[in-house]
Amino acid sequence: MRSVILLSGGLDSATVLAIARAKEREIHALSFDYGQRHRIELDAARAIAAKAGVAEHIVFSLDLRVFGGSALTSSIEVPKDALAESGIPVTYVPARNIIFLSLATGFAEVSGCEEIWIGVNAIDYSGYPDCRPEFIDAFQNAILKGTKSGVEQQRPRIVTPLLELSKAEIIQKGVALGVDYSMTTSCYDPDQAGRACGHCDSCILRRRGFEEAAIADPTRYR
Amino acid sequence: MRSVILLSGGLDSATVLAIARAKEREIHALSFDYGQRHRIELDAARAIAAKAGVAEHIVFSLDLRVFGGSALTSSIEVPKDALAESGIPVTYVPARNIIFLSLATGFAEVSGCEEIWIGVNAIDYSGYPDCRPEFIDAFQNAILKGTKSGVEQQRPRIVTPLLELSKAEIIQKGVALGVDYSMTTSCYDPDQAGRACGHCDSCILRRRGFEEAAIADPTRYR
Repeated sequence: MRSVILLSGGLDSATVLAIARAKEREIHALSFDYGQRHRIELDAARAIAAKAGVAEHIVFSLDLRVFGGSALTSSIEVPKDALAESGIPVTYVPARNIIFLSLATGFAEVSGCEEIWIGVNAIDYSGYPDCRPEFIDAFQNAILKGTKSGVEQQRPRIVTPLLELSKAEIIQKGVALGVDYSMTTSCYDPDQAGRACGHCDSCILRRRGFEEAAIADPTRYR
Repeated sequence: MRSVILLSGGLDSATVLAIARAKEREIHALSFDYGQRHRIELDAARAIAAKAGVAEHIVFSLDLRVFGGSALTSSIEVPKDALAESGIPVTYVPARNIIFLSLATGFAEVSGCEEIWIGVNAIDYSGYPDCRPEFIDAFQNAILKGTKSGVEQQRPRIVTPLLELSKAEIIQKGVALGVDYSMTTSCYDPDQAGRACGHCDSCILRRRGFEEAAIADPTRYR
C-alpha cells in the first residue's frame, strides 16, 4: 500500500517511518522546509529517507516566517529548562500540523497514497493542541468531506502509531526495528554543528525517554 | 474586528472583500501563488486589495505543482464548453481549500484575526468537494480542536457569505456594494493579455451569472 509519511528528521517520525516499513508500505516521505530555525533536521530527514530506501522523498518549501509568531520560526527565544506543565508553549507554530496534514492530503491524492502517517504523540509531548487525538479525528473528517479521494474513496486515512505511546515506548519500539537514533535530531535550538542544546522542551522529553527506556542516548550534545 | 479575507482575484472573493468591508472589518487579505496557470489572477488580487485599502495583503508562495495532478497546475488541458453535470472535474486541485484554509488559520492566529472569510459557493460551482458546507463545518471543527486560538478562544471562525447564493445573486450583491468586476478575473485559461477564454467551467458560470443578473458582463474575452 502506498503511504505518505511525514518525516521531520526527529525521533518520532523516524520511528513512524520504521513502523511503516515493517508493515511493508511503499513510502512517499514528505518533509517541510518552513523556515524552522532547526533546519538541520532536513538534513537528518534526507539521510533517514535515503537509508530507508523510500520510493520518494519530497522536501516541500513554504515560508511560515511570513506569518511570524513562534519561537521556532522567529527571533522569539526558545525556552530552556522549563518544560511547560500547563498551557501551550511559545514554540507552538500556528496551525503547523493542520498545514502539514493539508499538504500531505494534497500529495496523497496526487500520488495515489491511501494513508498519511504522522508521528503525533499525546503523552510525552509539548502541549500543542494539534498533537491530540481529537484534532486528528476532526482533521480526518475534514479530509473525508473536502477532498475528491475522501468523498469517493474514504481516503487518505491518517495513521498515528505513536499517539498513545510514551517517549520511552517509542524509543524501545524504534530500537527493536533497527532505527539509528543518532541520525535523528530533536533539538529546537541546535548549534551550527547540529549538536543539541539539551535544555529545550524537545531535548528534555527526548533525554528522559532514553533514560526511562534504559537505552544509551546517542544524541550529540554541546 | 480583524479578519483574514482569502482573495483570489476572482469574482467571488472580490465580492467577499466588499461585504467584509461593508461590515467594517479590518482586512488582512491573503492570496496564494501556488503555481496556477491563471497566475494573472494575482495581479487582479493586488489591484483589488489596493483599491479597497486593505490593512495588509500577503501573497503566499507554495508550489503545488510539486505534487502535480490538476488541470489548473499542470499540463492537463482545461476542459472547454463542458460544464460537468456530475462528478469532480479535472480542474480540481487536490486539497486546495484545505491547504488555503490551513494557511489562513496560521495567518489568523499570528495576526490576531478572529475570522477567515472565504468565497466558497455550493450553488453555481464546479462540483469541488471543498466548496460544500459540510466541508466548511468539518474544517471549522478541526480549527477548534487543533489550534491554540481555537482551543482557547474558539477562533478563527470561518465566514462564508456566498455559500447559498447563486452566481447572479453574488453579482447583484457585489454591484450594490460598488465592486468593479472588470478588475476581477475568473478564467482558468486566460491568454497572455489576461483575456478570458469564455469556455472553461469558470467562464461559463461567470457569464451565466451576469446574464441571469441582467447586468452587463465587463469581462474581456478573446
